[in-house]
Amino acid sequence: MNYPSKLIENAVAEFKKLPGIGEKTALRLVLHLLKQDEHKVENFSETMVKLRKEIKECKTCFNLSDDEQCAICTNQLREKQTICVVENIRDIIAIESTGSFRGMYHVLGGVISPINGIGPEELNVSALIERVKQEGTQEVIMAISPTIEGDTTIFYISKMLNGLNINISTIARGVSFGGELEYTDELTLARSISARMPYQNILIK
Amino acid sequence: MNYPSKLIENAVAEFKKLPGIGEKTALRLVLHLLKQDEHKVENFSETMVKLRKEIKECKTCFNLSDDEQCAICTNQLREKQTICVVENIRDIIAIESTGSFRGMYHVLGGVISPINGIGPEELNVSALIERVKQEGTQEVIMAISPTIEGDTTIFYISKMLNGLNINISTIARGVSFGGELEYTDELTLARSISARMPYQNILIK
Repeated sequence: MNYPSKLIENAVAEFKKLPGIGEKTALRLVLHLLKQDEHKVENFSETMVKLRKEIKECKTCFNLSDDEQCAICTNQLREKQTICVVENIRDIIAIESTGSFRGMYHVLGGVISPINGIGPEELNVSALIERVKQEGTQEVIMAISPTIEGDTTIFYISKMLNGLNINISTIARGVSFGGELEYTDELTLARSISARMPYQNILIK
Repeated sequence: MNYPSKLIENAVAEFKKLPGIGEKTALRLVLHLLKQDEHKVENFSETMVKLRKEIKECKTCFNLSDDEQCAICTNQLREKQTICVVENIRDIIAIESTGSFRGMYHVLGGVISPINGIGPEELNVSALIERVKQEGTQEVIMAISPTIEGDTTIFYISKMLNGLNINISTIARGVSFGGELEYTDELTLARSISARMPYQNILIK
């Protein structure tokens, strides 16, 4: 597209670098910013720079944090003996939004994926093992995507935790609540039947 | 959603203020920025502040511009005697991208819309009339949306230009190129038939 101004062209180019934003959307965002008060645009910009500069990684669980330790790790009311292992911070936000988990987290930073050159060394696995040993953890919940890479990762971690006398569980897999059976994919449905649960388990406690 | 960090929460809130960006998209953009180098995020922010601070309105045509006059108004190769009247700068970008217009523009800043409290005084109409008188314009092309408000605006401006001995035209209305007749709306199709053109006119010159 031909822009009447270099300033607009540059701003559109910057927005276009963001994921999922094409040229037309970028232009719409730029024209929106132009209609705002100057101090609002400054606020917007300062917030982004401050975010990037001041964000830290929690030294315990590798969650993103404002401080050395994240709000979950420093919260004395949470159950320290349960650690939920997740791939990334988005998963923590999703689980926290359900309000149904009161334990701790551990962010792996991804899953084992040889095809992408990601082995256990690239992930925060050894830190997890150390943590489990030191903190006297009783249960490790694997909240990892049910993909081949995810299952490989779960298998690897469970082998590393072997012999430490810890309960290892994964989040339940099966048909979604409110989902219709006829639209559920075959693999999920087949596994839901073979891994059927006692009726009592589906009653919410 | 529950965010683990106030910095992330603030950044998500800022992105959410932009049009068409919801909470999940905002979070995705924030996590993307966090993965970028610090100087890239600074570049992004500086570009936005610079844009907002330094952008000017062209004093001749009200296009957005880096300088007092925009690149189109200062371009000596363009045909000064033809002015294309548009609602906003997006229309200029769209027409310029076609590469088929070599004249000048005039940005109204909207259309007459009594229901939204927008009369001719809120638009750059009197500046257009002045400009036409001073510059010896020969043709005014109305590239205004074919809506009731748009047609009202065209009618008003054409009345104001009355007696100045200027050709007034509007961009052609009818079925889209490549569009299928059966999916064209009834009003467009009915008007396309009553306002049919000589066959020679549709051959591209």
